[in-house]
Amino acid sequence: MQKVLIEEFERIVGKQNCFSEIEDTMAYSYDAFPEEPKAPDIVVKPNDYEQIGQIIKLCNENSIPLIVRGSGTNLSGGTLPVSGGCVMLMTGFNKILDINTDDLYAIVQAGVVTQKLADAVAKKGLLYPPDPASLKVSTLGGNVAENSGGLRALKYGVTSHYLMGVKFFDNEGNLIKGGGKPVKLVTGYNLPGLMLSSEGTLGVMVEFILKLVPPPQSRKTLLVVYDDLIKASQTVSDIISSKIVPATLEILDNFTIQTVEKYHHLGLPTSAQAILLIEVDGHEAAVEDEYKKVADICKSLGGQIYIAKDDLERDSLWQARRDALSSLARLNPTLILEDATVPRSKVPAMMQAISEIAKKYNLLIGTFGHAGDGNLHPTILTDKRNKEEMKRVEKAIDEIFEITLKLEGTLSGEHGIGIAKAKYLESEVGQSTIAFMKKLKFGLDPGNILNPHKMSL
Amino acid sequence: MQKVLIEEFERIVGKQNCFSEIEDTMAYSYDAFPEEPKAPDIVVKPNDYEQIGQIIKLCNENSIPLIVRGSGTNLSGGTLPVSGGCVMLMTGFNKILDINTDDLYAIVQAGVVTQKLADAVAKKGLLYPPDPASLKVSTLGGNVAENSGGLRALKYGVTSHYLMGVKFFDNEGNLIKGGGKPVKLVTGYNLPGLMLSSEGTLGVMVEFILKLVPPPQSRKTLLVVYDDLIKASQTVSDIISSKIVPATLEILDNFTIQTVEKYHHLGLPTSAQAILLIEVDGHEAAVEDEYKKVADICKSLGGQIYIAKDDLERDSLWQARRDALSSLARLNPTLILEDATVPRSKVPAMMQAISEIAKKYNLLIGTFGHAGDGNLHPTILTDKRNKEEMKRVEKAIDEIFEITLKLEGTLSGEHGIGIAKAKYLESEVGQSTIAFMKKLKFGLDPGNILNPHKMSL
Ligand SMILES: Cc1cc2nc3c(=O)[nH]c(=O)nc-3n(C[C@H](O)[C@H](O)[C@H](O)COP(=O)(O)OP(=O)(O)OC[C@H]3O[C@@H](n4cnc5c(N)ncnc54)[C@H](O)[C@@H]3O)c2cc1C
Ligand SMILES: Cc1cc2nc3c(=O)[nH]c(=O)nc-3n(C[C@H](O)[C@H](O)[C@H](O)COP(=O)(O)OP(=O)(O)OC[C@H]3O[C@@H](n4cnc5c(N)ncnc54)[C@H](O)[C@@H]3O)c2cc1C
Repeated sequence: MQKVLIEEFERIVGKQNCFSEIEDTMAYSYDAFPEEPKAPDIVVKPNDYEQIGQIIKLCNENSIPLIVRGSGTNLSGGTLPVSGGCVMLMTGFNKILDINTDDLYAIVQAGVVTQKLADAVAKKGLLYPPDPASLKVSTLGGNVAENSGGLRALKYGVTSHYLMGVKFFDNEGNLIKGGGKPVKLVTGYNLPGLMLSSEGTLGVMVEFILKLVPPPQSRKTLLVVYDDLIKASQTVSDIISSKIVPATLEILDNFTIQTVEKYHHLGLPTSAQAILLIEVDGHEAAVEDEYKKVADICKSLGGQIYIAKDDLERDSLWQARRDALSSLARLNPTLILEDATVPRSKVPAMMQAISEIAKKYNLLIGTFGHAGDGNLHPTILTDKRNKEEMKRVEKAIDEIFEITLKLEGTLSGEHGIGIAKAKYLESEVGQSTIAFMKKLKFGLDPGNILNPHKMSL
Repeated sequence: MQKVLIEEFERIVGKQNCFSEIEDTMAYSYDAFPEEPKAPDIVVKPNDYEQIGQIIKLCNENSIPLIVRGSGTNLSGGTLPVSGGCVMLMTGFNKILDINTDDLYAIVQAGVVTQKLADAVAKKGLLYPPDPASLKVSTLGGNVAENSGGLRALKYGVTSHYLMGVKFFDNEGNLIKGGGKPVKLVTGYNLPGLMLSSEGTLGVMVEFILKLVPPPQSRKTLLVVYDDLIKASQTVSDIISSKIVPATLEILDNFTIQTVEKYHHLGLPTSAQAILLIEVDGHEAAVEDEYKKVADICKSLGGQIYIAKDDLERDSLWQARRDALSSLARLNPTLILEDATVPRSKVPAMMQAISEIAKKYNLLIGTFGHAGDGNLHPTILTDKRNKEEMKRVEKAIDEIFEITLKLEGTLSGEHGIGIAKAKYLESEVGQSTIAFMKKLKFGLDPGNILNPHKMSL
C-alpha cells in the first residue's frame, strides 16, 4: 500500500490505531476457517462512528477492499482479506448502550461480545436467547452478519428473530438506519432483514436494537445415551413430528464424545454410540409434561436417560457440547467442519449417509450439532500435507453436499458461505438466484469494496 | 395502451384472462386505502408461473408499470396503479401444495387466502399463527409483501417469523429462490427477509414455505372493562414490563366499542371508556398462572374482568375486534386509518395524545389496535368533500406522526407505506436511508417496472 494512503488512514484513526507492518497484519490473515493465511495491507481500529464513515469513503475512493472483523471466529473464511486491502476491527465498539426492561430490548454496539450482553441482560431478569457455541468470544456484529444460531435456537430461534433495528454505514460512508424500538415496524424495506447473513458485503454495522424475552421459569436437562447412532437420530425426528419443540436438542456421536472426554474429563459415557442433550424449559408444569413425553420417545428408541441434578451438572453437559469443536480440532493438524442442514425428518438419513461416506473414503469424521434444527456438523479430521488423503476428503465433502441437497437440505445452516462454500452455492440456489444476489450486491456496492469475493459474488 | 401490446398480453394469458375495457379495469382502480381511483391500462390473470415470467418480460421491455394484486385489502394504497400500467391478479395461484406434519412447514402459492391456510393447517393439528384481522380475504402474498401482523402477533410474532422460503420472479422475469425447507439456512443473502414488506416493488412472489407450530393446549380469553382510557393503556404497559407476554392484547376505545355494538349487537359494554381483549395460551397450568398475574394487574388499574365461558363467547369477542374497522367505516363517508406504533411503555402517552389531538381539531377519532405490540389504529372519520374539515384532518395526522416519532415510534407497524405514508417516510428514517432504499430498488429494478412510485421511491 502506498505510503500516502497509509498516512490517510493514520490521519483518520490515529497512528496508534493503524497497523501496516507484516508482524501486526499477520494476526488478521486468518480466521477460524482453515485456509492459507493472507495478510491485509493495513489494519485499522476506529474509535468512533465518524472514523468508520471516513475509512469507508477512503476505501471507496481508492478501490481498497474493506473487510470488517469482529472476533474472527466465523467458520467460512468470511474475514479473510483474499485480495488484500484494509481490515477494520470492530472490537472497540463494545458498549451496551441500554437495556430497557419496560419495553424488553437492548441497544448495543456491534463489537459487544455475545456473552457480555447475555450476562448483562440476565442480571436484569431477562433473556437474550441466541447462544452460538462461540458466544464467549464472538461479537454481536459477527452474529448478525452470519445470522448465528445456537443451542437454544430450536425453541427460541436464531439471531434474525431478535434483530429489531440496525445502524450501519453503506459503501459511501453514509449512516443508514433500519428498524427501530417498536416490536412491529414496516416503514420501507426490511433493512435489518437485509443485513442478516450479509457477511460484511453490504455495509458496516455499528449498532443493534435487540429484542429480549422473559426467561423460562423452570427447565430440565437430559443426557440421553444410545448404543445406536441412527436410533438417536430417529429420536430427534420423532420428537419434532410429535409436535414437541424442546429448547435444546443436540447430538454428539461416539467419536466426538470420546474426543471431548479425552481432553476435558467430564465423565461422558465414552462407549455410547451417540448422546442427545435435551433441555425443556418454560412453566414448571409444562416442563414436567414435556419432559415425560420426550422421555417416552427416547426410551422407546432405546435411549437411557440421565437428568442433570443441578445447575453444575447442566453446565458441564453444555460445556461438553461447546467443547466439541475445539476438542476435535486438537486431534489432527487439519479440521474441516461442515454445516449440512436438513429438514428434521431427514436427520436419520443424513447421519446414516455421513457414516457411510466416512467408511467409503476411510476418513475420520466426528459429527455433532444442533440436531433439533436438522443442523449437523460433520467434522473431518485430516492433514493438509497428506495430498492423497486430501483428495479423498474433497470427494467426501462433495458427497456430503450432494446428499444434503437430495434430502432437501442446505449447505449452511449457520456458518455462512464466505469463501468456504462459495463454489457449492450455485448447486443449491441456481444460477439465476446468484445473478440476483449479484444485482443486489453491485447495486449497493458498485465499487465492490465491502468484503469482495465472498459468497461467490 | 397500444392494441399491439394488448394483443401481446392476450397471447400470454389468453383473451379471457385479459381485461382492458374501463368497465373491467375500474374494479382494480382502488384498494382499501381511500384515494382517488385510478384505473390500470390492463388487468391480467395469469394461470401458471411461466406466464408470470412472460408478463414481466413484456412489461420490462416496454416500460409498463406492473402492479401485483392479491385481494386489494392493503390499507396504504399499495395496489393503486398510480401511473397506469398492468395490474396482475394473483388469485389464480390458490393452491396449498403441501402441509408437512413431520417437519412442521407448509408450501403454498401466493394467492392462497390466509384463512384457508389457517383452516387446513388446523385440521392437521398445527397452527399458522399470523392472523391479520383481514384474514378471511387477504392473500398470503399480500401478507408477506406487507409483513402483516395480527391478533396473535404479541406472543407469536408477525409474518416474518414464519417465512422460511420464497420463490419469486425478478424484474427480468427470472425465477429466484430464497430460503428453503430447513429451519436454519444462511446460504447467501436473506432473500425471504428482503421480500418481506417490499410491497410488490422488488419482485412477484409465487410460492412460500411457511413455518408451522404446535397449537397451544389451552387458553383463556378475557374482556376487561375500564372507565378510563389511560388506565386501560397503562395496563398494557404494566403487563409487558412485568415480563408477561400474552398471546393477544387488544384495545378498543369507547367510540369504537359503541360503533361496533351499533352494527353488530354483540353485547359489548357501551358505556366503558375502553376495553382490553386479552388471551393467554399455552400449557394449562401456565395459562392459569399467567391469567392470575394479568388479572391482578388489570384489577389494580380498575379493570373489571369477564372471562369468555366458551369458544362461542371467545369468537364473538374476537369478531368484535375484527369488526372494528369495517364498523367505523360505515359511520362517515371517509375513513382515515393510521398505524402509529410505539414502544409499549409509551402506549398511555400515545393514547393521551390522540385524545388531545381529537379535541384540539374537533374531529371524530376512534382508536383500537394491537396494543400489546404498541400498534394503535387511530381512525379519523370525516368526509372528503368537507374541505374545511379535511384541513383539520391533515393537521391532526401531521401531529399524530410527530408525537409518534417523539415517542420513539414508527409511522407504520403493519400497514406499510404504499402511497399513504410516502410523504412521511423521510421524517422517520432520514434522507440517507431513503437514498439507500433507492439504490436497493434501482439496482434490482433499473427500469422501475415493479409497482413504481410506492414507498417514496
Ligand atoms: C468454536 C466455535 C463455535 C461456534 N458455534 C457456533 C454456533 O453454535 N452457531 C453459529 O451459528 N455459529 C457458530 N460459530 C460460528 C459463528 O459464525 C461465529 O462464531 C460468530 O457469529 C462470528 O462472530 P465474530 O465476531 O467472530 O465475527 P467474525 O468472524 O469477525 O466475522 C464474521 C463475518 O461477519 C462480518 N462482520 C463482523 N462484524 C461485522 C460488522 N460490525 N458489520 C458488518 N459485518 C461484520 C465479517 O466481515 C465476516 O464476514 C462458531 C464458531 C466457533 C469458532
Ligand atoms: C379490515 C382489514 C383489517 C386488516 N387487519 C390487519 C391486521 O390486523 N394486521 C395487518 O398487518 N394488516 C391488516 N390489514 C392490512 C393488510 O396489509 C392486508 O389485509 C393484507 O396483508 C394484504 O393482503 P392482500 O392479498 O389484500 O394484498 P394486496 O392489498 O392485494 O397487496 C398488498 C401489497 O402487496 C403486494 N403484493 C400482493 N401480492 C403479491 C405477490 N404475490 N408478490 C409481490 N407483491 C405482492 C401488492 O403489490 C401491494 O403492494 C387489514 C386490512 C383490512 C382491510
